[in-house]
Amino acid sequence: MPDTHLSIRIDLANGNRIGPGKIALLEAIQATGSISGAARALEMSYRRAWLLVEEINNTLSEPAVTAEMGGRSGGGASVTPAGEKIVDLYRKIETNARSSAGTEFRALGKLIRRGK
Amino acid sequence: MPDTHLSIRIDLANGNRIGPGKIALLEAIQATGSISGAARALEMSYRRAWLLVEEINNTLSEPAVTAEMGGRSGGGASVTPAGEKIVDLYRKIETNARSSAGTEFRALGKLIRRGK
Repeated sequence: MPDTHLSIRIDLANGNRIGPGKIALLEAIQATGSISGAARALEMSYRRAWLLVEEINNTLSEPAVTAEMGGRSGGGASVTPAGEKIVDLYRKIETNARSSAGTEFRALGKLIRRGK
Repeated sequence: MPDTHLSIRIDLANGNRIGPGKIALLEAIQATGSISGAARALEMSYRRAWLLVEEINNTLSEPAVTAEMGGRSGGGASVTPAGEKIVDLYRKIETNARSSAGTEFRALGKLIRRGK
């Protein structure tokens, strides 16, 4: 099952969640330097990207993303050290989970119907 | 962060997904002996539970749930050995993922805002 893929979701004590979508958004902001660029890269509306960024920031004691509103450049955004830490911790948890699941993945693969 | 909770989602090679909702449904069918009982236990509509069972069954080379339609008892359902295996593998992957993530969870806890 080369394409079977494990992703993780973290349900936080304060009721919020961190999953693959929010982490991909933070990484896309790092890569593109703006929320609009990240939204385009992920084929997501600008509005949705903004709402997700707000949700992430509200979850943390320090914001993960700081954005310049407007301005000549259209407003850039950057991922803060706290945001980088979240991405890093999430990817570590995911890598550990994947590398510890090899046997179960192979067993699961045998139970899955191939094709569509 | 006593309540921070990790759950996993498996994106299968055939395009389907197995996550905490479907696994909880299989477990509730095991516990209650019917899809309607499981739907009640999970506060889900009967229709939604049926659709999820169909989705799970379509994913696998053998069905995970067999149901008696109608009949005097209103129709019982049971989880097949293939279904039990899926639940077991999922829970194992989850347990491994959780137990390997202690350090990262503590680090994550420090970045999270408390309360609502």
